[in-house]
Amino acid sequence: MRVLIINGPNLNLLGKREPSIYGSQTFEEYLVELRNQFSSIKIEYYQSNIEGEIINALHDAEDKYDGIVLNAGAYTHTSIAIADAIGGIGTDVVEVHLSCILAREEYRHKSLISPKCKGSIMGFGMQSYLLGIYSILDNKK
Amino acid sequence: MRVLIINGPNLNLLGKREPSIYGSQTFEEYLVELRNQFSSIKIEYYQSNIEGEIINALHDAEDKYDGIVLNAGAYTHTSIAIADAIGGIGTDVVEVHLSCILAREEYRHKSLISPKCKGSIMGFGMQSYLLGIYSILDNKK
Amino acid sequence: MRVLIINGPNLNLLGKREPSIYGSQTFEEYLVELRNQFSSIKIEYYQSNIEGEIINALHDAEDKYDGIVLNAGAYTHTSIAIADAIGGIGTDVVEVHLSCILAREEYRHKSLISPKCKGSIMGFGMQSYLLGIYSILDNKK
Amino acid sequence: MRVLIINGPNLNLLGKREPSIYGSQTFEEYLVELRNQFSSIKIEYYQSNIEGEIINALHDAEDKYDGIVLNAGAYTHTSIAIADAIGGIGTDVVEVHLSCILAREEYRHKSLISPKCKGSIMGFGMQSYLLGIYSILDNKK
Amino acid sequence: MRVLIINGPNLNLLGKREPSIYGSQTFEEYLVELRNQFSSIKIEYYQSNIEGEIINALHDAEDKYDGIVLNAGAYTHTSIAIADAIGGIGTDVVEVHLSCILAREEYRHKSLISPKCKGSIMGFGMQSYLLGIYSILDNKK
Amino acid sequence: MRVLIINGPNLNLLGKREPSIYGSQTFEEYLVELRNQFSSIKIEYYQSNIEGEIINALHDAEDKYDGIVLNAGAYTHTSIAIADAIGGIGTDVVEVHLSCILAREEYRHKSLISPKCKGSIMGFGMQSYLLGIYSILDNKK
Amino acid sequence: MRVLIINGPNLNLLGKREPSIYGSQTFEEYLVELRNQFSSIKIEYYQSNIEGEIINALHDAEDKYDGIVLNAGAYTHTSIAIADAIGGIGTDVVEVHLSCILAREEYRHKSLISPKCKGSIMGFGMQSYLLGIYSILDNKK
Amino acid sequence: MRVLIINGPNLNLLGKREPSIYGSQTFEEYLVELRNQFSSIKIEYYQSNIEGEIINALHDAEDKYDGIVLNAGAYTHTSIAIADAIGGIGTDVVEVHLSCILAREEYRHKSLISPKCKGSIMGFGMQSYLLGIYSILDNKK
Amino acid sequence: MRVLIINGPNLNLLGKREPSIYGSQTFEEYLVELRNQFSSIKIEYYQSNIEGEIINALHDAEDKYDGIVLNAGAYTHTSIAIADAIGGIGTDVVEVHLSCILAREEYRHKSLISPKCKGSIMGFGMQSYLLGIYSILDNKK
Amino acid sequence: MRVLIINGPNLNLLGKREPSIYGSQTFEEYLVELRNQFSSIKIEYYQSNIEGEIINALHDAEDKYDGIVLNAGAYTHTSIAIADAIGGIGTDVVEVHLSCILAREEYRHKSLISPKCKGSIMGFGMQSYLLGIYSILDNKK
Amino acid sequence: MRVLIINGPNLNLLGKREPSIYGSQTFEEYLVELRNQFSSIKIEYYQSNIEGEIINALHDAEDKYDGIVLNAGAYTHTSIAIADAIGGIGTDVVEVHLSCILAREEYRHKSLISPKCKGSIMGFGMQSYLLGIYSILDNKK
Amino acid sequence: MRVLIINGPNLNLLGKREPSIYGSQTFEEYLVELRNQFSSIKIEYYQSNIEGEIINALHDAEDKYDGIVLNAGAYTHTSIAIADAIGGIGTDVVEVHLSCILAREEYRHKSLISPKCKGSIMGFGMQSYLLGIYSILDNKK
Repeated sequence: MRVLIINGPNLNLLGKREPSIYGSQTFEEYLVELRNQFSSIKIEYYQSNIEGEIINALHDAEDKYDGIVLNAGAYTHTSIAIADAIGGIGTDVVEVHLSCILAREEYRHKSLISPKCKGSIMGFGMQSYLLGIYSILDNKK
Repeated sequence: MRVLIINGPNLNLLGKREPSIYGSQTFEEYLVELRNQFSSIKIEYYQSNIEGEIINALHDAEDKYDGIVLNAGAYTHTSIAIADAIGGIGTDVVEVHLSCILAREEYRHKSLISPKCKGSIMGFGMQSYLLGIYSILDNKK
Repeated sequence: MRVLIINGPNLNLLGKREPSIYGSQTFEEYLVELRNQFSSIKIEYYQSNIEGEIINALHDAEDKYDGIVLNAGAYTHTSIAIADAIGGIGTDVVEVHLSCILAREEYRHKSLISPKCKGSIMGFGMQSYLLGIYSILDNKK
Repeated sequence: MRVLIINGPNLNLLGKREPSIYGSQTFEEYLVELRNQFSSIKIEYYQSNIEGEIINALHDAEDKYDGIVLNAGAYTHTSIAIADAIGGIGTDVVEVHLSCILAREEYRHKSLISPKCKGSIMGFGMQSYLLGIYSILDNKK
Repeated sequence: MRVLIINGPNLNLLGKREPSIYGSQTFEEYLVELRNQFSSIKIEYYQSNIEGEIINALHDAEDKYDGIVLNAGAYTHTSIAIADAIGGIGTDVVEVHLSCILAREEYRHKSLISPKCKGSIMGFGMQSYLLGIYSILDNKK
Repeated sequence: MRVLIINGPNLNLLGKREPSIYGSQTFEEYLVELRNQFSSIKIEYYQSNIEGEIINALHDAEDKYDGIVLNAGAYTHTSIAIADAIGGIGTDVVEVHLSCILAREEYRHKSLISPKCKGSIMGFGMQSYLLGIYSILDNKK
Repeated sequence: MRVLIINGPNLNLLGKREPSIYGSQTFEEYLVELRNQFSSIKIEYYQSNIEGEIINALHDAEDKYDGIVLNAGAYTHTSIAIADAIGGIGTDVVEVHLSCILAREEYRHKSLISPKCKGSIMGFGMQSYLLGIYSILDNKK
Repeated sequence: MRVLIINGPNLNLLGKREPSIYGSQTFEEYLVELRNQFSSIKIEYYQSNIEGEIINALHDAEDKYDGIVLNAGAYTHTSIAIADAIGGIGTDVVEVHLSCILAREEYRHKSLISPKCKGSIMGFGMQSYLLGIYSILDNKK
Repeated sequence: MRVLIINGPNLNLLGKREPSIYGSQTFEEYLVELRNQFSSIKIEYYQSNIEGEIINALHDAEDKYDGIVLNAGAYTHTSIAIADAIGGIGTDVVEVHLSCILAREEYRHKSLISPKCKGSIMGFGMQSYLLGIYSILDNKK
Repeated sequence: MRVLIINGPNLNLLGKREPSIYGSQTFEEYLVELRNQFSSIKIEYYQSNIEGEIINALHDAEDKYDGIVLNAGAYTHTSIAIADAIGGIGTDVVEVHLSCILAREEYRHKSLISPKCKGSIMGFGMQSYLLGIYSILDNKK
Repeated sequence: MRVLIINGPNLNLLGKREPSIYGSQTFEEYLVELRNQFSSIKIEYYQSNIEGEIINALHDAEDKYDGIVLNAGAYTHTSIAIADAIGGIGTDVVEVHLSCILAREEYRHKSLISPKCKGSIMGFGMQSYLLGIYSILDNKK
Repeated sequence: MRVLIINGPNLNLLGKREPSIYGSQTFEEYLVELRNQFSSIKIEYYQSNIEGEIINALHDAEDKYDGIVLNAGAYTHTSIAIADAIGGIGTDVVEVHLSCILAREEYRHKSLISPKCKGSIMGFGMQSYLLGIYSILDNKK
């Protein structure tokens, strides 16, 4: 079983900046934990700050994975193009966010990609990724 | 470990109406599956169509559970009072929905309770409840 | 043939308050007239000021009546939950209002339940109920 | 007793186009049924696709009828002028629609003429006209 | 010197309906007074309830008059086409209204034709026409 | 002289939760103070989390009290039905709030019940109730 | 017969700035023309850039004039206080503007004072004042 | 092969007014060019300033043409009735505009008829008609 | 103990205009009553129609009073500058209004100064001032 | 004669995904047809999912082509930057879309690039490209 | 070289109130620093809390200064009249703000005066004035 | 001392296109002037049309510069991701624009990045960059 995690803009800064808010763990460190917890799953990881590269990654991922866990970061709220890419491929995409987008600034309240995703999980911090992978695993059982 | 599931208005109809959409499984039947899957957790269940009774249930639940899984149904979009109740008690509440609220009618797009919840999980059908309970379980580990 | 009339919040005050506007006839008195006019129909009546009790009444009414005439009062404009209940049961519901909701305050202009009802009748005063019942009767002929 | 039915734009196509939606009955054929059902009433009929001709028809109808049944079609949502004409004449006008305007496109949700009419009936298909005439008949009894 | 007065929808009812509001004087009667007051001007008059006929009248009026006084009635608020016609001809058009449109219903607050007119005069009752003609007369002096 | 205080949803938590914000005094304890301060007035108290029960309480209170002090909590912003109930009874209702609703979240800025109340008092904490009772007392002098 | 002309903010710059747009005539020079044209009327003039001084001037003018011609300049669009002052005094106020406010920037489209004025005249340049005075004169005849 | 061109309000002024913007060619003159360019197609032409007459023309055109090229002028933005007429007939309608409606005034930005048309072509000046006819021709090949 | 009452624009007209609405008592007359009722408090009074003078008065009042009762009149709805002045001084300001601002015109519904005030009291007529002073007195006890 | 076709995000999926909607023809296959049909024109093709690369392509294309046919896909609705690029180069750009954007989701209704383009063609499926090229060809004749 | 600094409402409180936010330096003290730093420039200073006096100051300043540095305070967001004054004089005005208005309350987000100013500088605290003067100095070199 | 200037989309066209508006100076040429004027500062320059590359540049710049001067071009109005990047790094960013964004099209009125920047400078043409660098220099003194 294979899962791809895609992280969008600025998520490469996790654990490196504002540790009082986001903790001092980088995503790469957390990835080790995730892989340990789901030892039966091959978890691959991709990060880009460029909207179109995330679209390319989604296109390329088709048919290669049992599911995709996507944190589109700020593009969640502005990118119709990523939403179209999700709708255009055959693999289930699960939307995750570290925080609840409805509890943040007004301009982060809407998600353009939610309606195209299999489901959405937000507000659990790093645990959101874990739940996203668990949803794919449970579904395939 | 104890978890309370609260279902809001019309969710008593699950499995009884529109089976082509919601399947033919009632929530009570699904509850059996959930309890089997999480045998270490005591899962209790409450349903009401009355907004204020859901508030009462939230007040009463305080300090008695390790977490609450709430599907507030249509009150999600209209009830500031339920949101206040969640904010006013000390127990974590996880918001769940069967479908993605952003993919439905305009008036279902906003959730008043999300900003007061520990996290939100939507779009996974019945599996949303399972993920909600799993998030509480994983958190306590 | 059986019809259920459901009246929502504050309609228990009809005929008791503001007689210069609403006349001095209570709904119970008008009900006698209605039953006389439609002697072949069994007309039952339920009133509640509690949103969730109206939902309960709609659920309970399913399969017991040839049609339901509903004046949801102020909940017409705020209750997605009642709209969901109408959409979730198999019996036709006819929406009625004493006055034209579009000729009143801005916040009464939209009806959340109209799209889920068989039809809507408004502005005819007490006669709106009569037309609602007549629509069910004529339909079954 | 005399009643005038006025149909607005495109309603001359009823029964001729999209029979799977609107049935294969023209309004002229339905008119025969209506006249049979209400044999004590003289029912006249006028149709125009031109906004101003409907205004002219309303002006001309004053004092000649016991009531007017008006389906203003698409002009319902855009014509302040027809609304003014209804408000400016002394005869009661009953607004009818085949479908529930609130269940259709956003731009059909508001009716400019409702506040000026005696009452509104919508969603009952062709039966809406029957209920409109019945409301006038019952009122004069 | 020649002036054309154009009246839009429902203004043919002036003096015939709601005399407590609009007085009992028809526009034709007022026209006699106007012609007496401005004996040096040839004042012609046209009224139609049909939007497109008002456009035709504006097209036809070009080069034949020193100015046009237009009360477009309800079309003031909805007709981009009449606004285009005013903008498309070479003769000055003065907009007049009996009442202040900003003191009436919300949907009458905007005038689509104002930006295309020489000037606007509103709120003076029948006197608005007089001021409109006076503005043309004074301008040509 | 008799006054009824009605508290809406979640106000039963006062003094029990978030003491750093709301203090550690329950409303029942404050009530003792109020009754001491206004010894000439019989002050009764009712609290409910259920919208319709507040409507029932308003209906029942008619003619039994010199005035009602109402803190409708979160229903202030969503309940047209409570507003209708206030408008439908003959007893003066004074609206009170602990905090200034305009200084809180956007969705708390409007009060649907203000226009139906005798007056509104907000922002004085518990003192708002005292001022509400004082306004009734001073009025009857 | 006495008329007061009040000019609001920046209108003291007329004729001194941007002559290609507003001409090179100051308001004081135009006032001489106006007084010549209406020799039977005593025309007084007041200008201020301070909102509250215009309110004072309106209060002071009461009962001393047959009418007031007011060009409130930019305060037209923002001053509820001036609108209240007009509504609070017994003398008719005629609103005038040099240009059509609906043909300018969006934020100039609404006039807060129109609903409180006897009538409004806009778009005729300096002639707007002349028509304003003429409307008062004609009314008193 | 037969094509009908329908022009809406004010388009009869083309080539007669504002030649610096629209050129000095009337539509009738351009029609000669079009007919020369598409000698295999019978091109008929209809123009009206009256909304309802355009609806009549669309109804009458059904089954008589291989396609209709429609420039609805200002009615593009306001006429739900014309949109309904297009949706109600079986012949393909191609929407054309001389200019890009999104580059003009805000109130011209939306087209009510676009969703009902086969396709839309705008901004090419007179060439828009040519492209409209070419689209029908190419389609039938 | 010292309290300052500040009245904003047009409130100098109280008792002099529209006595059927506001009564025939001037504010100066009411002030005598207030001073009698609160004989232990030194009550000073200031009124201005000029926004900036009210700001000056607020600045000057700092540290000289135990509290300020402010009826900002129409500036309530438009003056961010007065709100800033209240926020910038150290003395508590209580907002009062004669009528309920939410029951009046749409443009009076919001108060810019409420969030900066100690509390707000509205709808009690002249009694609003009395309650405002009482709130300061009770607070200092 | 040279023309450049630029396709934006996800259009590389054409013919590969959702064939029931978009057909089974890839854009590359359609390009062969286009080149056959316009044998006198050199048609080049560029596709990218990256917004900034489309801007680069537009900059690079300047002065090298007689025209550009651009389907900006989802960036049509969100990219002010692409609109600026079109406005900043000297070559005519024709906007094309497969479907009518006004008949799709609300967030696709506006085109930011239309006002900067020579013209827009939408709704004709693959034929939209053909019409775009034809418009450039016909213009150069 | 001469520069005028104009400060609007409440800026006379700088350094006197809320020192934790604004520091303990008054504007007069900062002015000494500014004059030292730009010893070749004559810097004059004016402050008023009255909107109209700021307009007067702008009118009076014309032709007397090489530039004006204006912090209009809260009037930035509400005063069309000040914006008109800036547009009506010949001297360049540079807009400055201590804080970024877009990072504060919603109602401070728009500046009515920006479009009329030479440029805007915000967010640099007291340094904003320095940059404003520097922009004038650099421009004259 | 080191400063980085980042220019966003289309700013590579400066001086090459529309010289009547933007002058004939390229940014590279202006950079020479800037470096001459601030000889004590090392000024580096980066330009990209790709949103994500600007984010990368901001991440990379951290800790290497005393300040960053950013003209994000059209991404100013649409890129939450760039705003997040600015907020996520430790170096001060000064926002600059050639023109006043509030004086341009409606969709350019808001800046998403302003609230995350040290300050904003707009409307001074090329001089905006100079003032941006000067603000960093003055700050470090």
